[in-house]
Amino acid sequence: MSKTNSGNFFEDFRIGQVIAHATPRTVTTGDIALYTALYGSRFAVQSSDAFAHQIGYSKSPVDDLLVFHIVFGKTVPDISLNAVANLGYADCRFLAPVFPGDTLSATSEVIGLKENSNGQTGVVYVRSRGFNQKGAVVLDYVRWVMVRKRDPKSPAPAEVVPQLPRALAPDQLGDALPVIDVRKYNFDLAGSKHRWGDYLPGERIDHVDGMTVEEAEHQLATRLYQNTAKVHFNQFSEGHGRFGRRLIYGGHVISLARALSFNGLGNAFHIAAINGGRHVSPLFAGLTVFAWTEVLERAEIAGREDVGALRLRTIATKDQPCAAYPLKEGDAYHPSVILDLDYWALIPR
Amino acid sequence: MSKTNSGNFFEDFRIGQVIAHATPRTVTTGDIALYTALYGSRFAVQSSDAFAHQIGYSKSPVDDLLVFHIVFGKTVPDISLNAVANLGYADCRFLAPVFPGDTLSATSEVIGLKENSNGQTGVVYVRSRGFNQKGAVVLDYVRWVMVRKRDPKSPAPAEVVPQLPRALAPDQLGDALPVIDVRKYNFDLAGSKHRWGDYLPGERIDHVDGMTVEEAEHQLATRLYQNTAKVHFNQFSEGHGRFGRRLIYGGHVISLARALSFNGLGNAFHIAAINGGRHVSPLFAGLTVFAWTEVLERAEIAGREDVGALRLRTIATKDQPCAAYPLKEGDAYHPSVILDLDYWALIPR
Amino acid sequence: MSKTNSGNFFEDFRIGQVIAHATPRTVTTGDIALYTALYGSRFAVQSSDAFAHQIGYSKSPVDDLLVFHIVFGKTVPDISLNAVANLGYADCRFLAPVFPGDTLSATSEVIGLKENSNGQTGVVYVRSRGFNQKGAVVLDYVRWVMVRKRDPKSPAPAEVVPQLPRALAPDQLGDALPVIDVRKYNFDLAGSKHRWGDYLPGERIDHVDGMTVEEAEHQLATRLYQNTAKVHFNQFSEGHGRFGRRLIYGGHVISLARALSFNGLGNAFHIAAINGGRHVSPLFAGLTVFAWTEVLERAEIAGREDVGALRLRTIATKDQPCAAYPLKEGDAYHPSVILDLDYWALIPR
Repeated sequence: MSKTNSGNFFEDFRIGQVIAHATPRTVTTGDIALYTALYGSRFAVQSSDAFAHQIGYSKSPVDDLLVFHIVFGKTVPDISLNAVANLGYADCRFLAPVFPGDTLSATSEVIGLKENSNGQTGVVYVRSRGFNQKGAVVLDYVRWVMVRKRDPKSPAPAEVVPQLPRALAPDQLGDALPVIDVRKYNFDLAGSKHRWGDYLPGERIDHVDGMTVEEAEHQLATRLYQNTAKVHFNQFSEGHGRFGRRLIYGGHVISLARALSFNGLGNAFHIAAINGGRHVSPLFAGLTVFAWTEVLERAEIAGREDVGALRLRTIATKDQPCAAYPLKEGDAYHPSVILDLDYWALIPR
Repeated sequence: MSKTNSGNFFEDFRIGQVIAHATPRTVTTGDIALYTALYGSRFAVQSSDAFAHQIGYSKSPVDDLLVFHIVFGKTVPDISLNAVANLGYADCRFLAPVFPGDTLSATSEVIGLKENSNGQTGVVYVRSRGFNQKGAVVLDYVRWVMVRKRDPKSPAPAEVVPQLPRALAPDQLGDALPVIDVRKYNFDLAGSKHRWGDYLPGERIDHVDGMTVEEAEHQLATRLYQNTAKVHFNQFSEGHGRFGRRLIYGGHVISLARALSFNGLGNAFHIAAINGGRHVSPLFAGLTVFAWTEVLERAEIAGREDVGALRLRTIATKDQPCAAYPLKEGDAYHPSVILDLDYWALIPR
Repeated sequence: MSKTNSGNFFEDFRIGQVIAHATPRTVTTGDIALYTALYGSRFAVQSSDAFAHQIGYSKSPVDDLLVFHIVFGKTVPDISLNAVANLGYADCRFLAPVFPGDTLSATSEVIGLKENSNGQTGVVYVRSRGFNQKGAVVLDYVRWVMVRKRDPKSPAPAEVVPQLPRALAPDQLGDALPVIDVRKYNFDLAGSKHRWGDYLPGERIDHVDGMTVEEAEHQLATRLYQNTAKVHFNQFSEGHGRFGRRLIYGGHVISLARALSFNGLGNAFHIAAINGGRHVSPLFAGLTVFAWTEVLERAEIAGREDVGALRLRTIATKDQPCAAYPLKEGDAYHPSVILDLDYWALIPR
């Protein structure tokens, strides 16, 4: 029996199966410094302990996407080592703030299985959860991936496809954000005067700036998350592969787009939920990422007067500035589009 | 009204105007680790809590230039987003030590305005200040930049050009350095036997080593400082620009030269003031930085027997070793010179 | 007299001489985050304070190899600045755990000298020791390097060649590992079910994955360790040198191989000793590192029922997957081999 992990294949998954993932990970101010160096994020609440404390946190919480990437990274060796494609995310909620010193661990429960008609692969749906050291759930999301079968002849399992919401409802948002004192939220220091009420559904915002990605950067990021997906690190193998190059972790694009979105969304400091996300096309080192956002909805959160929710659709592109809001060409995505992300952000009222 | 920051243009500035910059930033040991990884600095006081504590600090202070870069980065979105050129620094003093856990914020006051005769641009002089979370000034400096006008037809403001000192006087130095116990300063551990009295005005020191800069490195550094100047990050745009390449943040060169200067100035662990600095020519990734220093002056600091001041002129070059102290060719700088920096460093007596 | 360090030459070393190296260094969670980002290491004990605390540590100890690299880096300016070649290591033991906040310093004692017959160089043997801020030895090892003579005509010293053990004995292992509570060691969270008893002498493990190295990555790593060896950083000089390129620090390869070895050795979380190591051929940026391991011995540690020792030989290669365990071609190493490392790792029983 081999001592190395060859990952799970489609027939290894069973409905209801719960997998406890390795490796637990203490998040530190060191991780936060690296996250800042990798993306240049500037949200005041995550950047300044003093600012965060002023409005009601004990200190700066860890950036939501850093939490996401760490939890996601843990699921890779068990869920997606033999994945052909990462098909989607849904029903993703941030449920408790994470602070430096907290230790994150993760589990995944298999909630759907559907063999593909070719008999070579199947789709696995998992609900993954991230926990802190006290056992509190900090993150909960569904993802589905196409996974290879070990043996094409093994029988297909009963088909189970979970019902997934197109979007979280506003009353499901806000658990990870303590009630804040907006009177003490300094909009000058935050870098934007715009509040919840200033954004309108249908409004589109070009985030203006572009960020070129280097191989060393995405490798540092992806290893920081202890994400072991082979395609990100191994030029020797990928050089013989489909693209001839290392693929950049899709989450790296999400974090770049989010950091760029500060320019226009400076007070939308907390991601409360991700409704869905699609990595439309791959990104490679040397290309420059741009982003723009459309406001899809504006919602109150019942019982909260401090913050409101904006449902945002952020599009990231490669080597394509976004002043013209590139998205589709006919029915297909514009060839520059790499990310189409639908999420809820919270912002002071 | 656009929600994105398009920066200030020349006619947006008024004499006496004070700008509170975003984003406050808590400095951590994570930032310090990255700073070490980026430059390889080896000054014992900043490297070892035990060494710093031994001589009288509570623990290691944050490197002076890391403080400078973070404060400088905050000023960029308001002062120099539309700058054509960063013309100079002067009257820069470090006024209080910064420790991990401190939160830095920054303001700038407009102290000078002078429209250029072409009517297209003007020079803006600002006094920028960095503060810690208690409101104490930790850094105070003047910089002037050439900024584009939004509308060449807008009227020129009354010309105000501040008087700036050629250099700080020795009695203005040392506020950020507590009195240290030199008997407990271990010169073996510090890596150099040379004290204040061992340096002579006119003495020149070749710092010997060279350091090649990679794109990923300067991007990580500049994002760590939350400096948003576009020219450092966007190969797509810069590829069509003047140089065809991303420009490296001038402060990256200062930090490289400072780290190289450890070899020859190992005990000059604190920068007390920057008298002036000029980025003589641009640096690009792939080039190797070398440095040499001339001792301009040696000064006592009134009332202090622990340390003295050395006024230093450090020259950095690209792809040019400094054994021959390259500086000028006739009246012009030697083409290899990228930095000409005049500063005061403090060193045990 | 020059103020810069030109390093020691062969005739500067004397048997019995003890050198206190600069620069003391406080290790922080920032360094640990960078170490994770550079190698992607996933050993649970070093990754999670909660996991480490559960089994008996106060919190996560610093990765053994990070300790090694920091101590090693300190010795470079005094021992190997004029080295022609780093010939070997032996008798290396980790003697006390290091935690974030500890300050490391280092000394070396000259224990052997042997001039080469060409009169141009000689071999220097040093025993280097790393200490924490309380003066406890955390690391002790012998290394020998070939160093240039300043003057080929200077007389040869009396030849002293130390006797070095081929391997540490099992009863010399374990000082840096507190007795752990194996019942509380969660093998699911650790990512492997395999214990000491599951490994057999002669067993070979292909670690499967490959990791491509970028210039920015090895430079960041080597500067993080404050290692000043010129060949790693200066493309201008190395471009004219033997390889035309920057050489990657051998320790970077050791850490890459160790991180890759998690896949197959996930519970062997502590390196107790390094019996010997050889950097068989150089690594350059752009190449991909693979690794495999042979179990050489399995040993009990007297008085300990919690952990046992595995003597491991880890081979790292460049651009050569290790499914076929590449090692020798006839009497010579396979041309892909870059590292041959013999060490003791401890693992729960």
